[in-house]
Amino acid sequence: MAGGRKQEKLDLIAQRVRAIPDFPKKGILFRDICPILKDPGAVAAVIDLFEEYVRQTNLDIDLIVGLDARGFLFGPLLAQRLGVGFVLVRKKGKLPGPTVSVSYCLEYGKAELEIQEDAVSAGQKVMLIDDLLATGGTLAATCDLMTQKQATVLGCLVVIELKELKGAEKLGTHRLFSLLQY
Amino acid sequence: MAGGRKQEKLDLIAQRVRAIPDFPKKGILFRDICPILKDPGAVAAVIDLFEEYVRQTNLDIDLIVGLDARGFLFGPLLAQRLGVGFVLVRKKGKLPGPTVSVSYCLEYGKAELEIQEDAVSAGQKVMLIDDLLATGGTLAATCDLMTQKQATVLGCLVVIELKELKGAEKLGTHRLFSLLQY
Repeated sequence: MAGGRKQEKLDLIAQRVRAIPDFPKKGILFRDICPILKDPGAVAAVIDLFEEYVRQTNLDIDLIVGLDARGFLFGPLLAQRLGVGFVLVRKKGKLPGPTVSVSYCLEYGKAELEIQEDAVSAGQKVMLIDDLLATGGTLAATCDLMTQKQATVLGCLVVIELKELKGAEKLGTHRLFSLLQY
Repeated sequence: MAGGRKQEKLDLIAQRVRAIPDFPKKGILFRDICPILKDPGAVAAVIDLFEEYVRQTNLDIDLIVGLDARGFLFGPLLAQRLGVGFVLVRKKGKLPGPTVSVSYCLEYGKAELEIQEDAVSAGQKVMLIDDLLATGGTLAATCDLMTQKQATVLGCLVVIELKELKGAEKLGTHRLFSLLQY
């Protein structure tokens, strides 16, 4: 993909991100990706850029692992492009059968994430996907979950990175690829 | 698509649905679609069959509307195939900005679903999508939400229909297309 074409795609995606003040609470400027989903050209641009990153980095991926719930919007699309499977990471209690879980800290209290026990095998190479990186708590917890299963995290893909919250630091040595940074 | 090819796809999808007893509670046989997502061929088969249905029925669709959270897994894929946008229906409190909501009855108590106020316009033709039809409460509520916005519901697509729960009756005159019936 030529550089100009890539910038065009990024511009289109950026135009489809809406800033909504005071959500989910006063003082927070929420980056809303719903307008991206309403525009099939913008969705295609997101997946094009993710795919380009994976192919240029020569990543040999076994699975795309997506976070509940907005990671579900982009993950299966990318997995189809790459011809690999998609695994769901969900909040506790949502997945049937034997599961493996990890707890992580929220601003107040704790939460738990789960995958099915047979979702990922030891030695598999996975790429995580979500819509947005804020403090990085859920993505870092998912990295832990993958390590617990002896899978290798090749990196994390997000549409939006909120730079000032320093979520990338929480991901440690795991690579982060974000399309837009605020 | 030839009939034989179609049956092959249905067989593949059926092989990837796992029955898990006593989830989410004792006595319920849960149909788990996670193995579909792990198999890129099965995901493609689901989207092929949905796309074929839409094209053969000559439905002129403006938007695919997907239900939180498993409708998010298939909705954007189908929307991309059809070249249309995707709209998120979420549980109350998850969507930023002005929303329109509808409440519906659960087994115990009530729940609310929301869309963003500008997600659907009057006169638009929409197709709803979810992974599974059980009692039909959430899909019927989403139909109400669309009617409230003066959009036309062309039908509902689900991978799995649990026949004995008679969810299709709750959808009234809205067409239902399911790939697998149990």
